[in-house]
Parts: sequence; structure tokens; C-alpha cells
Amino acid sequence: MKAPILTPLAASLPATVPFTGPETQERRQGQPFIARLGANESLFGPSPAAIEAMQTAASEAWMYGDPEVHALKNALAAHHGCAPENIVAGEGIDGLLGYLARLIVEPGTPVVTSLGAYPTFNFHVAGFGGTLHRAPYKDDHEDPTALLDLARQTGARMLYLANPDNPMGSHHPGRAIQDLLVNLPAETLLVLDEAYVDLAPAGTAPVIDPNTPNLIRLRTFSKAHSLAGLRVGYAITAPALAQAFDKVRNHFGLGRVAQAGALAALQDQDYLAEIRAKITVARDRLSGIARANGLIPLPSATNFITMDCARDGDYARRVLAALLERGIFVRMPGVAPLDRCIRVSLGDEAALAAFEAALPAALKAAD
Amino acid sequence: MKAPILTPLAASLPATVPFTGPETQERRQGQPFIARLGANESLFGPSPAAIEAMQTAASEAWMYGDPEVHALKNALAAHHGCAPENIVAGEGIDGLLGYLARLIVEPGTPVVTSLGAYPTFNFHVAGFGGTLHRAPYKDDHEDPTALLDLARQTGARMLYLANPDNPMGSHHPGRAIQDLLVNLPAETLLVLDEAYVDLAPAGTAPVIDPNTPNLIRLRTFSKAHSLAGLRVGYAITAPALAQAFDKVRNHFGLGRVAQAGALAALQDQDYLAEIRAKITVARDRLSGIARANGLIPLPSATNFITMDCARDGDYARRVLAALLERGIFVRMPGVAPLDRCIRVSLGDEAALAAFEAALPAALKAAD
Repeated sequence: MKAPILTPLAASLPATVPFTGPETQERRQGQPFIARLGANESLFGPSPAAIEAMQTAASEAWMYGDPEVHALKNALAAHHGCAPENIVAGEGIDGLLGYLARLIVEPGTPVVTSLGAYPTFNFHVAGFGGTLHRAPYKDDHEDPTALLDLARQTGARMLYLANPDNPMGSHHPGRAIQDLLVNLPAETLLVLDEAYVDLAPAGTAPVIDPNTPNLIRLRTFSKAHSLAGLRVGYAITAPALAQAFDKVRNHFGLGRVAQAGALAALQDQDYLAEIRAKITVARDRLSGIARANGLIPLPSATNFITMDCARDGDYARRVLAALLERGIFVRMPGVAPLDRCIRVSLGDEAALAAFEAALPAALKAAD
Repeated sequence: MKAPILTPLAASLPATVPFTGPETQERRQGQPFIARLGANESLFGPSPAAIEAMQTAASEAWMYGDPEVHALKNALAAHHGCAPENIVAGEGIDGLLGYLARLIVEPGTPVVTSLGAYPTFNFHVAGFGGTLHRAPYKDDHEDPTALLDLARQTGARMLYLANPDNPMGSHHPGRAIQDLLVNLPAETLLVLDEAYVDLAPAGTAPVIDPNTPNLIRLRTFSKAHSLAGLRVGYAITAPALAQAFDKVRNHFGLGRVAQAGALAALQDQDYLAEIRAKITVARDRLSGIARANGLIPLPSATNFITMDCARDGDYARRVLAALLERGIFVRMPGVAPLDRCIRVSLGDEAALAAFEAALPAALKAAD
């Protein structure tokens, strides 16, 4: 026997990637995509103030980032009307979900999510040996009632819900989340992924005391703030859980450039308002393209439009493949019945026009 | 009972920080440090090419970084004469140590390190419930023979050794590491932390087949490349272990700006040579300051000088406190007998002159 000897849990895990990156697909195809509309990135780009802050910080990158993330956490607390002790900053929502799973999940721990919801949450739960229970979507929405029932039945320690939802783009009003929280079993933590909430209609974010012990809200600079490549996410939760992240996190994991860029983006709320306006226009444009081609654009509270191809998953997968072949990077939901759809990120006019140009031939090829 | 319910392991862990950041100390003192010489950062700054690459990437930060880190991994493989499959890139050595511990350590797993060596390794091992066994330093060097004996006695699954060492700055020739590897028990993985090896004398890096199954070497862009604030580290190891990281890592954890900066730094080997030359000059300068004040500079293969204050730990702690009060950020080893020393990073002339100016009064105050 030669080292390394993995733990039985680690040995049992597949070496999977939750998502194949667009660069990997470009390398396989031997050419770059014409339009990068698959990862719900924000093609409108970061705030000029954020770009400038990152560029200034680049010269200072010889210094570790502040492990307490003091300036950004304080600014976030002021923005959300809570205390810095309610904030955990980390390496994207993905990184925070990993730490959260580590804190709460051990082999056999029951966890509830929706069938077809965010795969990276599942990756982390499974990575710590948790047992995932999945409630189906209802009318293309995550189903709070079914999730709640399943949590009760299984004694779930976490209930994951994204509001707005990815991959369907649907949302619930904030009061539905408040109702869910009130009815949550005592042993269940509500993991509320609000990655897209900055782009959702007013009232989508529930009004909840940040010190509520059985809730953690996750936010990101990757979507509305157009900083996916910086990897900065944060959580809003009760101080006891926030502090527990210090037990396990990579304390210097948020670098200097990342902290500076995120802080400047947060402070540029005017730019965020511009992005919201552009998203609204782009939603109409992209929905129109879908309709003009016989697809059904689902209502979106996010920076993407999920389009019902009105046939089965095999057909939608063919449409996806035909788009990829034509240089249009899009993704689609992984499981039925959601997989009758393709998911197209909102982009600038150049990218949407490229999608518009490629779609008719892709649909024909898939037919 | 109200959620969240932490796992018994997580509940048992303290919410500690392996290192208190200099920013935290500055906030406590109410003013910024005059000289930042405590975290072994490189005050000489990153390569201009790396700065330019980060600045360009800042505008592209709306895109996630390539989760396969293709370009950087390929460049690293070419640089080290191995295959890309031998490389794991991640969020600094700290981040990689966290993933490694997760793969190998479960409650009770025996792990060997040196008494007084890198605390963040211990943080991650303890964080997964591992049992740490510590061999004392010998003549201010980590002691391969004692480490090996302890690994045999305890059935250790990992043996951590930093070469060059932090916090003492000492090193072993590469052939000593090769000997250690040959004599390693079959169930033990050698975790060879080479964070400082770019700054060490020729021959410090052992010549070992990268496909050796019981070895993982850790490297970083934080030290010689002056990019601590980017958080990019990498491992060189056999493909089977490299691939195992895919089971647990934050796949999008290395952002676009980080990958671009690291790649440009790697490609600017001329700048690295300049840094080495500056380090050599600064070592002499800082050693001279130590001697002029009655301290004994230990030989250094790193970007810091550990100075023997020639009395006990309480005295060295008073020297450290007196330096901090005077605006000079330095650190010191945590345990006896190493804690008779203070550890001062090499810096530019301005920082070293500030240290030189403050040291006499600090020593007097500590007396």
C-alpha cells in the first residue's frame, strides 16, 4: 500500500465537476464561442468604479487581503441594515455553500432541495455524505409546500431554496418565504439563495430579522454586479452561525483585489440601477426572439430567460447542441420536466443578435 | 431546539483565526503600520507584467474563471517539466491544504508535523478531526529523522514538512528530502510545503518524479511572485491525487483576475530573478541591522530573517509588542524554544530603515 489513503467518504465521491466551463467546451470545439450566454454572467460588465478599484488594487496585490474583510463587511451591513456580525464574506456563494455543508452535514444528514435546482449545492452536501431529498417543481416554481412537507418527513437539517430560482427564472413573493420560515421544523435551517434577487421585482426579498437563527441568506457579486470572475459572495445570518464559519473557512481566501472590487461595486448603486434597466430591456428583447421562433419564454426575475421548447428533453438537448455548434453558449435544466427548456442568459445587443441569428437554424437542425 | 445544528465535530471546533491580520491590529491601534514586515509578503511588489494582466482582466471580471484553469496549469506543467495532470491549482496553499485535509483526514487520523510549524496546516487537520503529533525542531531546523520516527510510531497518514521552513527560515538540501521520501512508511503522504523554495539556494528543491504517489508539493504565487493578495497556489503531485481534488474543490474558486495575474507572473522569470537579487541584498541588510542591535540573525533561505533575541519567549514577546507599538508589524514563532526569536520579513529599503530606526528603542523598552 502506498499513500495517499483517502477517507472512505472521499474515496466514494466521484471526481465530477458541477458545471463544465465554457472554456472547456471551446477547447473541445477548437474555437471560441460567438456569444457567451450559458453561465448567467452579466455581459454588461462591472461598474467602471469597480474596474478602477481592481486596477488600483492590482499594484497592491503583494499584500494579503484583510482576513476579517472589515471594510466590505461593514459596508454590506450598512447596506442591509444589519450588523457586521450578521455577515460572512467568502469565495462566492459556491465557497460559502461548501463551508455551510461542512458545518452541518455529516454522513447521512438529511437535506432537502428541489429536483433540478442548483447542482453545486448538491455537490457540497453529497461531498460531506449528506442524503439529498428532492421535491419536484410545481408549475416551474420551486414548491415551498412540498419542500416543507419533505423537510418534516425527513427531519432535514437544511432546506435549500433559491428565490428567484435558477434554472427556471421564476420567483415567489417575499411573503411566501416568510411563511415558509414560520412553518419550518425546529431542526431545519432555511438556506435561501438570493443570487438573483437584485434583479427581481420589488417585494421578492422577504423582510426578516437578520438575527433569525434558522435562516441563512446568500448573496453574490457575480450576477447583478457583473463580477463572477472575482469570486465574492456573502451570507446574511444570525451571528452564531456567521461566527461558526470562522471554524472552517480559508481565512485569507478573499484576496485584496476581490475585496476592493466588491466594495466599489457595492458603493456604485447608480450603476446597479443602470444594469437593472438594461436587464429589463434585454428580457423583452430575448423573450421576443423566443416567441418569434415558436419557443415560450418563461417569466424571469433573473438575468436569464428560460425558454420552453414545448417538446421533450431530447429535443431541447438537440437544440442546445445545435446552438453550441453554431458558437452560442447556452445551458439547460438537467432533469425532467424542466429539461424541455433551454436557459439563455441576458446579454448585450451583440450577443442577443448572435443568438437571434443562430436560433432558427438550430431549431431546424434539432427538429 | 432551533437550527442550525452543527455536526459534533464542527461544534467542538473553536472559532479561531490561524493568524490575526495586520489590518485587525491596525484597527486596534487606531493607526496604520509604518512597516508591514510580519506576514512574509513581498514588499517589492508584483511583476509589472502581472499588474498589467490583472488590470486587463479586471474589465473581463464579469466572466467566471476557467474552472479547469487550463492555461495556468499548462504553463506550470511546462515550467516544472511535468504533465498538466500533475498540477492542482487552488485558492492559495491554505486553500489546497484545506482540500487535502478533507480528502485524507477524518476524526482520529494521525498526522505528523513539527512543533511550531505552519499553524494553518494544523488548523485544517484539526478542522477535520485529525490527531496532530509534533516532533520538535532540532537546531532550528525541522527534523526529518524525528518526523519519520514519529510517523512510524503513529501510523501517520500525512507528514508535513516545509522546506525552506517557516518560521525559522532554515532549509535542508533537496537530497535530505529525497532520503526522507525513500524512508517514508507506506501509508504516509509527504506534504512538502515549498512556499519559499523560489528564494532558496540551488539544490533546495529535491529532484523527484512528479508521479511519485506518496508526495504532494505545494507552491505559491504569494511569496517570490509577490501576489499574496491574489490567492493562487498550486500543488504538484501524482495524477490520482491531483484528480481527487476535483471531488471536493470549489471548482470556480480561482477567478479570472487571479488566473491572469498568476500566469503573467509565471511567464516573467526575469522579474523573478530581480526579486531574488533584491532578496539577497535585503537579507544582508536586515541581518546587519539585527547584529548591530545584539540580535542573532539566523541563516535564511526565505524572504524573512528570524532573529534570535537570545533570551526567553517572554522577552521576545515584549520586543514584538514594543515594535508593534512603534508601527512595525512583525510576527514571531508561537512555541518554545523557537519563541526566543522574532521574525521579520525582508522589505524594501524604506521598510527596513523604519525597522532599523524603531528597533533600538523597542529593545530598550522590552528589557
